[in-house]
Amino acid sequence: MLVPVESLRVLAKKALSRQGVANPNASLQAEVLMEAELRGLPSHGLQRLPQIIARIRTGLADPDATGSARWTRPGALAVDGQRGLGPVVVMDTIGRLSEAVQSRGIVLAAIRNANHIGMLAYYVEAAARQNLIAVVLTTSEALVHPFGGTEAMLGTNPIAIGIPTGAEPFVLDLATSRVSMGKIHHHALTGRPVPDDWAVDADGNRTTDPEAAKSGAIAPFGDAKGYGLGLAFELLVATLAGSDFAPEVHGTLDATEVANKGDLIILIDPNAGDARAAGVASYLDRVRGSRAADPARPIAIPGDRMRARRQHSLEAGIELPDALYDQIQALSVG
Amino acid sequence: MLVPVESLRVLAKKALSRQGVANPNASLQAEVLMEAELRGLPSHGLQRLPQIIARIRTGLADPDATGSARWTRPGALAVDGQRGLGPVVVMDTIGRLSEAVQSRGIVLAAIRNANHIGMLAYYVEAAARQNLIAVVLTTSEALVHPFGGTEAMLGTNPIAIGIPTGAEPFVLDLATSRVSMGKIHHHALTGRPVPDDWAVDADGNRTTDPEAAKSGAIAPFGDAKGYGLGLAFELLVATLAGSDFAPEVHGTLDATEVANKGDLIILIDPNAGDARAAGVASYLDRVRGSRAADPARPIAIPGDRMRARRQHSLEAGIELPDALYDQIQALSVG
Repeated sequence: MLVPVESLRVLAKKALSRQGVANPNASLQAEVLMEAELRGLPSHGLQRLPQIIARIRTGLADPDATGSARWTRPGALAVDGQRGLGPVVVMDTIGRLSEAVQSRGIVLAAIRNANHIGMLAYYVEAAARQNLIAVVLTTSEALVHPFGGTEAMLGTNPIAIGIPTGAEPFVLDLATSRVSMGKIHHHALTGRPVPDDWAVDADGNRTTDPEAAKSGAIAPFGDAKGYGLGLAFELLVATLAGSDFAPEVHGTLDATEVANKGDLIILIDPNAGDARAAGVASYLDRVRGSRAADPARPIAIPGDRMRARRQHSLEAGIELPDALYDQIQALSVG
Repeated sequence: MLVPVESLRVLAKKALSRQGVANPNASLQAEVLMEAELRGLPSHGLQRLPQIIARIRTGLADPDATGSARWTRPGALAVDGQRGLGPVVVMDTIGRLSEAVQSRGIVLAAIRNANHIGMLAYYVEAAARQNLIAVVLTTSEALVHPFGGTEAMLGTNPIAIGIPTGAEPFVLDLATSRVSMGKIHHHALTGRPVPDDWAVDADGNRTTDPEAAKSGAIAPFGDAKGYGLGLAFELLVATLAGSDFAPEVHGTLDATEVANKGDLIILIDPNAGDARAAGVASYLDRVRGSRAADPARPIAIPGDRMRARRQHSLEAGIELPDALYDQIQALSVG
């Protein structure tokens, strides 16, 4: 069903408030889920809400915790998320980092023991709007096989990079897997086969059966290079956050285990090099205007399509499965 | 011809010394080229030496310059390379950064006005051997088309990431293009067609003709994701270093123009999060030992094959085209 944005936002917040999530935490958690829906990323949207609420009920998520942060060095913040909601801990951390970055040039925070932080684009866009460069990494359960391998050994290990441009910020947000596990689940739900280069089954054979792919492993994007980047991000996060490696990670997809993945945030003052390039926005416009393979599909800059999609959703509303709407409705009044 | 490593190293250094490059700069520039040859990366090896020498002769490269570095913030170093040799400026910069990183946790340097820095793996491996995490980015002439595009608008924009593991360091070094322009040149030299998804010709049509590809544009690796990363690196370097964007960059492939690309170096103390993960090396061993699609090709960790290749070359010698050997020989005595 098509639901107006404002009523959905109110509903999501209500469902959290009913679980004793106070403001501003309820608003923030609801907003991060809503922003994913608005951008057409349902895998990071409201379908996560019932699980978040289940985790609050069982004590796996503490809705009041903002994390305990300690500067180990002038440029490095170590954060124990104290089982807080992911968006709450990350935004608290970004607040601390952004106060420090102007004077230090570059700062990082390594977070462990926080719940799933959702769509990374939200955070780097927030930083870019404060005129800061941001890089955000997070890890996950083992879902991705190495290049040349067939066993899930790595997380989907996404990276987001936000860069102020003088105009709309540059916002890149991508998983290092070829597709998200959410997309494979969506094919399974709708009974459609998956392309044969997306995943292998539990025995390590390439499969077009989404059900078989769910218990197998997803391919890394971009073959050896994407695998290399995913592995680098796995090591960076685990080394700095002291979090677990993918085969031992749990708690981002279930409602039964503590979240033991890690998150890494780096903020940079774009003027730190004291040599800011003029014309970032005009270079991006030149890229947008450069020759397209298909004249009907002009070149996009990361962030462009997401912004257009968001604008459209704000006006048109959000298409939500009936069952999910009913579930959230029940949670908000039940 | 197959040349013993030591005699080639001496020859390369001699050729530089004869141009008035004093030590340690001559040794360092020769070493970075030699290390690329040892790792089987001839595009970043000795074939660059005649051009480097030509650039010294014309004043485009100053063999004595180490760059002028200034801390703009406690965590940020702005470096004017003063037309120095790339490896000389970068290693001087890494020396300054590594003195500062222990106390600050994370530091960056943005470099402009340095010559081509060669194989990035060299630098992140050097940092990892000092127990430091390193990320190095550099930009180049426009050689790569956007995803969905057909015009060269981006550099090959490589990234290298080095991470200490307790055993051999993790060393990732990749261009965000599908292949290097050097590889396309090599196909042209040897008269072999290129796969039709590597590049487009000057008119924007997919081509298997390496000569046509040379005047066209290379595809980004990993489709939209690789394009997004390449563009992010383009913006990061240009924003922080104040260097030019790819369409205006020159001086890394020619002997006639100043080098106006930029380089970005980030060093991180792996203990900065105060929560160092145990078992990085054993996790990597588990990945290596995980099930391979082809049992004859076990899973590799980035850096593994390069190290094996280097070890082999040290014993077997380096295979160099006769003409290139003669040219370096002439430069070393001429």
